[in-house]
Amino acid sequence: MKKRLFSGIQPSGEVHIGNYLGAIKNWVGMIDRYDCIFCIVDYHAITVEYDPKEMQNRIINAAAVNIAAGLDPNKCILFVQSHVPEHTELAWILNTVTPMGHLERMTQFKDKAKQHRDNINAGLFTYPVLQAADILVYKAEAVPIGEDQVQHIELAREIARKFNSRYGEIFPDPKEILSDAPRIMGIDGKTKMSKSRDNYISLVESSESIWKKLSTAVTDENRKRRTDPGNPEICNLFTLHKHYSSIEQIERINRECRTAEIGCVECKKILYENIIKALSPIREKYEELIKDKHSIIDILHEGAKKCKNMAEITMAEVRRQMGLT
Amino acid sequence: MKKRLFSGIQPSGEVHIGNYLGAIKNWVGMIDRYDCIFCIVDYHAITVEYDPKEMQNRIINAAAVNIAAGLDPNKCILFVQSHVPEHTELAWILNTVTPMGHLERMTQFKDKAKQHRDNINAGLFTYPVLQAADILVYKAEAVPIGEDQVQHIELAREIARKFNSRYGEIFPDPKEILSDAPRIMGIDGKTKMSKSRDNYISLVESSESIWKKLSTAVTDENRKRRTDPGNPEICNLFTLHKHYSSIEQIERINRECRTAEIGCVECKKILYENIIKALSPIREKYEELIKDKHSIIDILHEGAKKCKNMAEITMAEVRRQMGLT
Ligand code: SF4
Ligand code: SF4
Repeated sequence: MKKRLFSGIQPSGEVHIGNYLGAIKNWVGMIDRYDCIFCIVDYHAITVEYDPKEMQNRIINAAAVNIAAGLDPNKCILFVQSHVPEHTELAWILNTVTPMGHLERMTQFKDKAKQHRDNINAGLFTYPVLQAADILVYKAEAVPIGEDQVQHIELAREIARKFNSRYGEIFPDPKEILSDAPRIMGIDGKTKMSKSRDNYISLVESSESIWKKLSTAVTDENRKRRTDPGNPEICNLFTLHKHYSSIEQIERINRECRTAEIGCVECKKILYENIIKALSPIREKYEELIKDKHSIIDILHEGAKKCKNMAEITMAEVRRQMGLT
Repeated sequence: MKKRLFSGIQPSGEVHIGNYLGAIKNWVGMIDRYDCIFCIVDYHAITVEYDPKEMQNRIINAAAVNIAAGLDPNKCILFVQSHVPEHTELAWILNTVTPMGHLERMTQFKDKAKQHRDNINAGLFTYPVLQAADILVYKAEAVPIGEDQVQHIELAREIARKFNSRYGEIFPDPKEILSDAPRIMGIDGKTKMSKSRDNYISLVESSESIWKKLSTAVTDENRKRRTDPGNPEICNLFTLHKHYSSIEQIERINRECRTAEIGCVECKKILYENIIKALSPIREKYEELIKDKHSIIDILHEGAKKCKNMAEITMAEVRRQMGLT
């Protein structure tokens, strides 16, 4: 039997190529090997301020982009967290076996508390407990994550063990599958690609817009003139080449950039062609999907139904062991 | 239209006359004036260690005693918290509008953290948020409580207002109805009557056992001999007389104790007779109920069904306002 995999998807307004290369692409590669559940985590998203009027669009958009990028709903489950309230029910229960000290140690909480000084709320603090519930309510054993989530998955394991030792063995140990995708920098070449910094290339952006961004993207800053040799190792566009261009192209650029044989404009054009080739099918599929929001909603409801069945079975077991039936 | 009243009932192994005089008796008096919901709060009870094997009995016992004491299920709703998972769902949502600083200030958390040093968990910390959800999910406006819960109801009000101001007016302000029952001391005459101190008289205790406890109960400790005059004001049994004896009896004891005309044994016998008279109907009703656990379970399920309907309506409204439909 395949192991069950769980992953959360933020309902973000935009999905960029950093998200794709760092996460979605890996998920697509796991769909056949695992029994995959992908969850759009709206109940996590509300821990920071947001516009309620936008949330529905963000959720549907996240679903459409992820399906377009390869999360085929015939091969995996895609659903919205708030459609399966068992997540929050188990989160309450897991709160009662989660030591305060453990939550206080979470660096993500400390970072977010600094970022959102006006809104340091109890949801932000107990966020990792809901995350543990997300995983454990499906008894998932595989959780693909980035480096920044390692501490949370370690906590989820501890919570599972604590529950098991107090009430009896129910939850398997969830294990992380660490993404080996390199950090994708933004087109400013300075910081990680991110929605909040507007330094990203969207997965479903128009070709014109992508070229506009690439043409002004920061390259090796020491290469001031066309005739200056450059260093691909410190050029963010070269990282993108590694993901989108052919081996021959990558080798050529690695060589000719250093000798100033190739200029940044030509180099960017090659990258542009390759990115467009890779993203066009995703964008087309996305545009087709987003035209019919109802069928996306149907897919999400279908997913929620399957998840609810599984979650109810786990919760019945949990309640029985706890003497709460 | 009657205002809705919500109160939580701890699923304790035993209900003592301190609980009755401090809470249940008041509730019974409110049943006709309010639209009453009484909730056996098992999801609160699990924030401290307990024996899962005992929990079912504790819940059924709490239901039976409270019904026997006057919470007529034909006139009010009685149900078990974990049967309506919307409580925990709303609690998660309310977490996200509850500032950490507010929870850190709760004296009950600080006290419990001292008492349960080995188990300072996130459930203990966010306990008041679940309490707020218990009340708000039914839009209850009246909450009968003791002095020690004032801080929690103030927090519930703040949480309601915070939610309303962020997402739109949904929750009315819940207001406390402060119990004016005096603190009932234990039969040791030293500390508040409580289960954990074994200084209590159960609401459904046998007459023999009650006499045994009363006969050895501490009175005015300065009254060493039968001939010593006593002071009813510092005698805990006199407090009980005030609740269970007639005005004439109370006046007589207040007079004759001070002059040593009446002895403690006679005084206790009068109290005993009156307590038995008051408790016998409760005990008999309880014994009849507890014989048929299935009908108690039916009552609780019936109550949960009604509550679930109400809670679902509130949650649909909450989700809509938050953009989570
Ligand atoms: S030629 Fe290409 S790799 Fe070299 S600095 Fe310019 S953009 Fe970067
Ligand atoms: S006579 Fe009654 S009131 Fe006076 S000390 Fe004895 S028990 Fe207490």
